[in-house]
Formats: sequence, C-alpha cells, structure tokens
Amino acid sequence: MNEKLLNYKLIISYDGTRYCGWQIQKNGNSIQQIIQDIASMLVHNQVNLIGSGRTDAGVHASGQVANFHSIRIPDLYRFRGSLNALLPPDIRILGLEEAPDQFHARYSSIGKEYHYHIHLAKVQNPFKRLYCLHLKEKIDLSILKEAASLFIGTHDFTSFANESHTGTASYDSIRTIKRLDIIEQPEGVRLEFEGDGFLYKMIRNIVGTLLEIAAGKRAQEEIPIILSAKDRRMAGQAAPPLGLFLMKVHYLKTCLESSIR
Amino acid sequence: MNEKLLNYKLIISYDGTRYCGWQIQKNGNSIQQIIQDIASMLVHNQVNLIGSGRTDAGVHASGQVANFHSIRIPDLYRFRGSLNALLPPDIRILGLEEAPDQFHARYSSIGKEYHYHIHLAKVQNPFKRLYCLHLKEKIDLSILKEAASLFIGTHDFTSFANESHTGTASYDSIRTIKRLDIIEQPEGVRLEFEGDGFLYKMIRNIVGTLLEIAAGKRAQEEIPIILSAKDRRMAGQAAPPLGLFLMKVHYLKTCLESSIR
Repeated sequence: MNEKLLNYKLIISYDGTRYCGWQIQKNGNSIQQIIQDIASMLVHNQVNLIGSGRTDAGVHASGQVANFHSIRIPDLYRFRGSLNALLPPDIRILGLEEAPDQFHARYSSIGKEYHYHIHLAKVQNPFKRLYCLHLKEKIDLSILKEAASLFIGTHDFTSFANESHTGTASYDSIRTIKRLDIIEQPEGVRLEFEGDGFLYKMIRNIVGTLLEIAAGKRAQEEIPIILSAKDRRMAGQAAPPLGLFLMKVHYLKTCLESSIR
Repeated sequence: MNEKLLNYKLIISYDGTRYCGWQIQKNGNSIQQIIQDIASMLVHNQVNLIGSGRTDAGVHASGQVANFHSIRIPDLYRFRGSLNALLPPDIRILGLEEAPDQFHARYSSIGKEYHYHIHLAKVQNPFKRLYCLHLKEKIDLSILKEAASLFIGTHDFTSFANESHTGTASYDSIRTIKRLDIIEQPEGVRLEFEGDGFLYKMIRNIVGTLLEIAAGKRAQEEIPIILSAKDRRMAGQAAPPLGLFLMKVHYLKTCLESSIR
C-alpha cells in the first residue's frame, strides 16, 4: 500500500485500577495494548501507539496523550465513537484529531500536569477508595505548603527518582517544577504538579516525602539536603499510585498546527 | 445470658456496584448480610440488623442508617474500627452510637434524602461510570426544572411505584415530596429528592419520566395525568440504579435522645 500515512493524536482518560499501567508489558493488561489493538483492528493495519509517557499500575489519567500513524481515517467523530464502543468503560478516548507529521506524543511534549489526591478522614469514603490516598491521622497543611514550595524550581531530582526497569541509570535528572500547589478540599487536599517532565516515580516519591514532613516525622529543612545528596535512599517512601492522575500534557502550539496538505 | 440488650445505631456508606442491594437475599451478596455477620461475630452473638429501608442492586448510600440490639459494647470507637477493618473497602461504617430503646431504623424514620447524578457529555468520564447515568444527548434543563416542580407536594404515587417482590400491592401509596431540586454541575446535573418516604423504585421511575420529558419525548402536562391514573404503565422507564445515592435518613430528635440509664 503506497497511501501516505497520516498522524493522529488522541486524548485519553482512564481509571488505572485494573491495569498494569500505560505501557505494553509481556504478561500485563496495559492501556496502551488495548487501545493499540482496537485501533489496529479498526484501520485494518497494525498501528504503533506512542504515549506521552508511561503511567504506573494503578495510576489514573484524565488527559493522557498518544499518537499513531495510519492511512486516512475518513470520519474522526465516528472513529472515536467506534473506539469507545469497543474499549472497556474504564478507558475513554476524549479527543481524536489529525496532527502534523512531526508531532510525537513523547518527544514533542514540553510539560505535564499531575494531581495527587489525599482523603483526610477518620473513616475512608468508599467512593474515594480507588482515587485518593486515605490518611486517618491529621497532617499539618501549613507545613505541607511550606515544604512543597522547596521543590519548586530547577533541581537534580536523582534522590526522588527510582531507577526505571527499562531506562538506563545515566539519564539526565535535572527537571523544573514550575508549580506545586496545595489545594485544600472539603475532606482532603490535592497536590497539583506542573513541570517540564517528571522522572520515574518522582511525583510519588515527592508526595511520600512531603507527607512524612507534614506528619512531623521529618523536618522540611531536610529537603535541600536530600536533593543535593543525589541518593534515592535519602528521600521518603513512594506514595501509593491510586491517588495520582495525569491531567494534561503540554505541547508547543507549533507542534500541533496541522501542516498544509 | 440475662444482660440487658442495648440499641446501637449505625450510619453506613457503601458503593452498591458489587451488591444485590441492601436487603438480605437467599442467593445474593447483600450489604445487610455482610454487616450483620461481622457485627454478630464481633459481639459473639447473632444480631438482627434493621435498615432504614432497602436500596436496590447497584444503588449507593452515603448515609444509610441501621440499628441492632446487643449486649453492651464497651468501646464504640474501637468497635467501629473493628467493623471497618473486617468489612470490604466498598462498605464503611461512618458512625456508631447508642440509641434509645425505642429507636427503630425503619419505623422511626420521618424522611429521606436521595440524590440522582446525571453526567451530560459526548464521551463518558471513566471516573463517573459507576456513579452517574451518562447521557450523550442534550436535555433541556429549564424543562427539567419545570417538570420536576410538578412532583413536589403530596400525591398518590401508584403510577411511579413498582410492585415490590415482598410487599403486598395494597399498601398506602400517598407520599409527600418536600423538595426536588435540580442542581447544575460542571458536566451534568444532580436531582435532589427529599420526602417523607419513597415507594419501591419511585425515584428511579420519576427520574426516568423526567428525562423523557427533558428529551422532548413527552410533555410535562402529562405528569398530573399520569399521577391521577394510578397506573404504573403510564409513567416512563426506571432510570438505572447506578446514579442513585441514599444521602440521609431523618428521625425525630426525640427518637434519638438517649434514654437515661
């Protein structure tokens, strides 16, 4: 087939509870595999689905982005409907559009937003059990806010990055956190992260460390020491995946402007 | 054992997705059975758990009320913790307190509040899939509000009541809806019902009928005609259970004041 392949961009929401994560794994039920298989079936060709990045088992997304190349899809609205009709109800394609040839969901990304949800109550709310970390004990929100502000800016985040199963250990670990807001909720708190990118388990390790500080188990003065140590063993335990949501992936506007055809 | 039995009141929240409903059924996984079994085990005696009323399979609760008689439980805070530790995470005991002897979760009730959640969007939100009715097509909210107001007041709701499997058909079907508010949400709408009591499937039948009206399939002028017909076949289809939440059960304050012991 000599037909020119076009580039399609997806915006995807998923409840990560049932999955081994975004990325295709040999013996796991991954979100990437399910969407790729259904898209391939619908275009009658094997497509290669590229995500903006992986999310771990149990992590959720409201705005994951992916792209794939395919022969022309005549009606994108109907195609999105067909995808959603075949996908399980815990994965939904929110958006589908044609993207410029050079658009790559991972390499074109210039930033991401994640939210981490914490439910603060003596008894867990059954409706939040899959979507929030539940803490019975009180935490000091003013200390949480102060400590969070120490992560903002450009740092070497080696101490907050787990070694990836697939990646090499020698990757560049300088990242910029542009925003880390602590938003108080009726029965909890939400941590909003925005940055140019995040290392493997970096957000969960930062949240875990912040919670140890807000619970009085560590001093916030340790944060700069942990950062400069560049040693993962210095930081706190990773917070569990279920509170984490990938909310948005940012791209340069020019990367998304469709080329003239 | 001659020890005097005391009366205990529970406030319960549950995600109804996995259950056959509140009420004990021979071949079903009911919320009442699970709580009753665990409470009986903890007090080393068979207790009889009385709920304020049943909720159907798939219906949720944030404020179901139940009571049971038992020998004195020495530490209610610890007992609630033990119940919650043994219950599955989709059922949670929010409150546990001693109630006066005469308190009966069903017969002492003087009113109830239910919410029905509707998600209005072209694509379903995966995080709402178990807790909202999803509608792709637009509905007319001003018509919904006008039509809803026609249900407020005291009516014979025979046309909106299904025959119960267990009850007789000749029950009194006059009920008073004190409040039926339509609350607009960012991507949907919530119907808030408050009344002295609701017949079997009455709320779901009212919601189903209102949605047919708001979609332009029926005229709101039909509502008084349907009510006066006293014929279930006249009203619309029941809305699905997953959008329905039992929020609160009201009791006379005097029923809840503890007797002097």
